[in-house]
Amino acid sequence: MLNSPIRSVEWNVDSIKLLDQRLLPSKTVFLTLTTIKDVWEAIFVLKVRGAPAIGITAAYGLALWAQQSEIQDYREFRLELEKQAAYLESSRPTAVNLFWAIKRILSSIESVEAVTTAKEVILNEAHLITKEDEDVCRSIGEYAVGLFNDEDTLLTHCNAGGIATARYGTALAPFYIAKERGINLKAYASETRPVLQGARLTAWELEQLGVDVTLITDNMVAHTIKSKGINAVIVGADRIAANGDTANKIGTYGLALIAHALEVPFYVAAPLSTIDLATATGEDIEIEERHADEVRTLNGQAVTTATMKVFNPAFDVTPSELITGIITEKGIITGDFKQKLANLFI
Amino acid sequence: MLNSPIRSVEWNVDSIKLLDQRLLPSKTVFLTLTTIKDVWEAIFVLKVRGAPAIGITAAYGLALWAQQSEIQDYREFRLELEKQAAYLESSRPTAVNLFWAIKRILSSIESVEAVTTAKEVILNEAHLITKEDEDVCRSIGEYAVGLFNDEDTLLTHCNAGGIATARYGTALAPFYIAKERGINLKAYASETRPVLQGARLTAWELEQLGVDVTLITDNMVAHTIKSKGINAVIVGADRIAANGDTANKIGTYGLALIAHALEVPFYVAAPLSTIDLATATGEDIEIEERHADEVRTLNGQAVTTATMKVFNPAFDVTPSELITGIITEKGIITGDFKQKLANLFI
Repeated sequence: MLNSPIRSVEWNVDSIKLLDQRLLPSKTVFLTLTTIKDVWEAIFVLKVRGAPAIGITAAYGLALWAQQSEIQDYREFRLELEKQAAYLESSRPTAVNLFWAIKRILSSIESVEAVTTAKEVILNEAHLITKEDEDVCRSIGEYAVGLFNDEDTLLTHCNAGGIATARYGTALAPFYIAKERGINLKAYASETRPVLQGARLTAWELEQLGVDVTLITDNMVAHTIKSKGINAVIVGADRIAANGDTANKIGTYGLALIAHALEVPFYVAAPLSTIDLATATGEDIEIEERHADEVRTLNGQAVTTATMKVFNPAFDVTPSELITGIITEKGIITGDFKQKLANLFI
Repeated sequence: MLNSPIRSVEWNVDSIKLLDQRLLPSKTVFLTLTTIKDVWEAIFVLKVRGAPAIGITAAYGLALWAQQSEIQDYREFRLELEKQAAYLESSRPTAVNLFWAIKRILSSIESVEAVTTAKEVILNEAHLITKEDEDVCRSIGEYAVGLFNDEDTLLTHCNAGGIATARYGTALAPFYIAKERGINLKAYASETRPVLQGARLTAWELEQLGVDVTLITDNMVAHTIKSKGINAVIVGADRIAANGDTANKIGTYGLALIAHALEVPFYVAAPLSTIDLATATGEDIEIEERHADEVRTLNGQAVTTATMKVFNPAFDVTPSELITGIITEKGIITGDFKQKLANLFI
């Protein structure tokens, strides 16, 4: 058992240490990325996943290139850095956090005038992005852990874990903070078909942390809540609308309806960066549909006919009235989500 | 497209034609069973599944042995038949329907006094068991189809289909009757982890029948009901208590809670033989737990760590207040389940 939080991406003197999340849970392999090409490929082939972890990897990717650059002229260095930034952006063009992190690195050297200074500033900015994400997740975990008692059992869905962020994660953050404080939180993880992030990542991550975790299939949620004394459900979020409606991994909505019917608190743990005040309600969130083969197969094995018609929405929207509280790095929001979420940004 | 109902077990002059359900959906193979040993093995290794289909297969298994027997003395014939019956019972000692069908075959020749007559009576009794099951399922389908309109879309879970019975099935029976009558019913099938009866059997069976069927994972139910205009949910049952509480495949309870919250009717389709008046409520139904590896793997492939703790209940219990109606071969029960279910047996 590894009782300290796993970091999925970390700067290591002159290279990047990266957990290959594709191989989980059967193999825990840390890669050493030594070139920006390694970084591009790691993002492109999904060795790294989770919006914050992708942003951090890209930031360190630019720092890696900068450290290795032999360009002396600052103007030339900056032009080449911008090219490398565009190159990294091409690794996953839909990842908002990737663009955000790269932009921060470029902005960080706006008032810099020498290559040596720039190299230092870029690496520091990458460290700062990581540190900020870690602080945000830690703060979420600290607020969250206050909601629960020693020996409580929480049910979670998908993976909003430490390996998707700098450290701690969001929905899994209270498990890390509880461990530090000697509070025993137990977990049930739903496997999260079709891609099985719950079985492959969350169950593995909590097992590594030494948490008493039990895996169930997604359709066991109601029977488990009823028969196993689940104290609360806690999930992450992909996007939170201004009124608190929350888009998250498919299955979250059903889980919220079941928790509501069985009178179990339902919490969303997410950073402020997930809250989108420009989206009025969940109705305005478009649900991405993914390829039918994700449902037709599992690990490449067919589970139905090759011609089977499939509906494969990647997310669903949980209406805010089903949400007991939204746990952010600035505190826990309950009740009038619309007013209180807006207040967070004042 | 095979637009006539598939029969998973059928008598064919001097052998049994049996659909090998283990190979579905990738291969549709009909086996020819020519000895009682073939029949024992088919039941033992799960080539045949579904309580009624198992009973029918066993009944024909005894008929097969009787046809082939060269014993002349009736007393000796009867003793040997009882031995063969005990042999078949050993193929799946927990299958209540298997014992019931074998008992019916043995009882059928109680007043018989000659081997030739016995051989005829046994085969006729096996045919009668099949015919009765077919009539029950057809009647359920006829009552059920009256609940729906042309172009309605129903959501179903697991496989309560024609291949589990003599013909038509229970929850799937309205689809067969609708086809005969030119009524277009569309379907969503949830895959039903861990064993995937929905993906492997229901989706395949409805595709064979020419029904417009769409496969989803179990956690897509809430989003699908909300976004795809599902008119009703219909499922089978393993056991119905005297008050209407219904034990069925794991996931049914959550589905019922979701349907209730989203105000979609939730029907249980089941024969009277499923109703157990000796069980007062769902609280009295023990839930079987199956092996952890069913959840840890999918089609033999690991989806989590080998040491992962798993909770794997095979069934759950849906409280009767979540059930809009129970569709039996004697009509549709709504409202006061306790009184009305008891009345069915008067």
